[in-house]
Amino acid sequence: MKVLVGSGYVGADMEDLARAAELSFLDAMTDDELARELPEFDAAIVLGWPSRIGADKIGLMKKLKFVQTELAGVNSVPFGSFRPEVKVSSNAGAYSRAVGEFAIALLFAASKRIVKYDARIKKGSFKRDSFVRLGREVALLRAKTLGVLGLGGIGKVAAELGEGVGMKVIAYSRHGPAEPGVELFAGRDGLNEVLGRSDAVVVALPLTKLTVGLIRKEELWTMKDDAILVNVARAEIVDETAVYERLSSTPSFTYATDVWYTVDGRESYAPRTRLLELENFIGTPHLSGPSASVGGEPRRLAKENLGRFLRGEPPHNVARREDYV
Amino acid sequence: MKVLVGSGYVGADMEDLARAAELSFLDAMTDDELARELPEFDAAIVLGWPSRIGADKIGLMKKLKFVQTELAGVNSVPFGSFRPEVKVSSNAGAYSRAVGEFAIALLFAASKRIVKYDARIKKGSFKRDSFVRLGREVALLRAKTLGVLGLGGIGKVAAELGEGVGMKVIAYSRHGPAEPGVELFAGRDGLNEVLGRSDAVVVALPLTKLTVGLIRKEELWTMKDDAILVNVARAEIVDETAVYERLSSTPSFTYATDVWYTVDGRESYAPRTRLLELENFIGTPHLSGPSASVGGEPRRLAKENLGRFLRGEPPHNVARREDYV
Repeated sequence: MKVLVGSGYVGADMEDLARAAELSFLDAMTDDELARELPEFDAAIVLGWPSRIGADKIGLMKKLKFVQTELAGVNSVPFGSFRPEVKVSSNAGAYSRAVGEFAIALLFAASKRIVKYDARIKKGSFKRDSFVRLGREVALLRAKTLGVLGLGGIGKVAAELGEGVGMKVIAYSRHGPAEPGVELFAGRDGLNEVLGRSDAVVVALPLTKLTVGLIRKEELWTMKDDAILVNVARAEIVDETAVYERLSSTPSFTYATDVWYTVDGRESYAPRTRLLELENFIGTPHLSGPSASVGGEPRRLAKENLGRFLRGEPPHNVARREDYV
Repeated sequence: MKVLVGSGYVGADMEDLARAAELSFLDAMTDDELARELPEFDAAIVLGWPSRIGADKIGLMKKLKFVQTELAGVNSVPFGSFRPEVKVSSNAGAYSRAVGEFAIALLFAASKRIVKYDARIKKGSFKRDSFVRLGREVALLRAKTLGVLGLGGIGKVAAELGEGVGMKVIAYSRHGPAEPGVELFAGRDGLNEVLGRSDAVVVALPLTKLTVGLIRKEELWTMKDDAILVNVARAEIVDETAVYERLSSTPSFTYATDVWYTVDGRESYAPRTRLLELENFIGTPHLSGPSASVGGEPRRLAKENLGRFLRGEPPHNVARREDYV
């Protein structure tokens, strides 16, 4: 079998796979070489889908049967350009612990107003405020309600950590089974119920055609005025203009995100709204994933799953094509 | 019995106590009235000791037997000016949950580099960095070692929350008994052991003559180069110049504090060093306490303990005079 190895990988990363298949490294190929080899690939392993291989080139990949991403989300994969029989596996689970911890870190930072007041002190603009007014801004998390949107690997870790600090956890998920102690809701009414009841909401859904723009104006105004919305999934799940308006008209509402809107195929840290000017907006540059990658676990899991395909075993985490096309 | 009620309290706060004792409100008295009444007070309830009652005036308080603070720490109380038989009770425990949660919030914010990268993005100075380099900066907390200095109420909550997120917890404490699962160390060697082994250290000690300047240059350099030091106790436990030097020479080291050095009797948010210029310094303006106060629990507990004294029962949380004089 012939396998295309995407950008950013070198031979040493793939030594083990080289015993099971013939590997071609994208970074080592000219465009001509690539065009010649594309019809031969049975499978591809990529971080996200490479922008160098557009729809026209994908059309040449007649033998392609399997794509494995190293990223957890497969939203960069142009499903519509593949023949329907091509299976695409995400790397769901590989980043769960790191991203789940990151979600709870954003929640803690937001609920204790750490970013806001650290910035004020450093700018010299902090004025001593009444003890009571400061106290009202800084929430105790114990016994508060955490709503988790999506109970995949990341959502489960966020739910466990939330329970670990004494929060009551509810969740919006189309799948069962429920986590112990977590009340489950589904459908549009279920989403509104979770949003309305939660003091903090963690978005841990994949970005699909079902979830893009899921959190719009109406959903944001269903949330409590002093709620915290945390996004560790994909920016496009939350409508940018609607969240800007919610934040600018409700200073007690917080949006804390590690993910950013995609411009020209990559996340842009310069939003089109003035989100960055708001004290109740917290943004980090997609730091959650890399912390999982350092130990090599996501790459190891991606290769392991490609190995299943190469050995003729059914791969894990096959994405539902109908959620994306 | 006659009770002096310190600054910031009004009659409505004390209605229940007024049935058990004769109350005089400091804010309602002129200096002359105060001087006349001071010899009559059996007890005092104060937030911290009022600066209006200096050593000379304390000398007039011949009948004083008991002082109750609403603050958890009694370091503002001038023990040396009281007759040795005056008992001083702290409000230890009243803030434990709020301050313990705050410690873990600072730890999460620091370990995920949320403050640093949020500030860079907002300033427009964030440059895309390699995935791996970012990942090395952002630590997973699970299985890391948390060292807790002081296992009073706050330290215990911090230890429990640390365990709740999967950290291994060790502690420096002169008291037993151990918390389940927490390895205990005591003495100077024990302190060094905790500092050297921990990935993150939470300072939850009272400020006494034994703990002032406890964390100096030597202790800071005993800690790991990528360690996180969190202070929710009192600033003076950590030497300001030494921590500035550790931070400025070790960018991977973080100091996150909610407490500030006292200047002219109150915390000053303008440190004498250039701490505020450092990206690896995180500072919030003593937000942890007020969040506990909003519900009224600290005031209720302080009055309850004063009630014990008034009824002739032994009050809780009597401070060890020899730790302060």
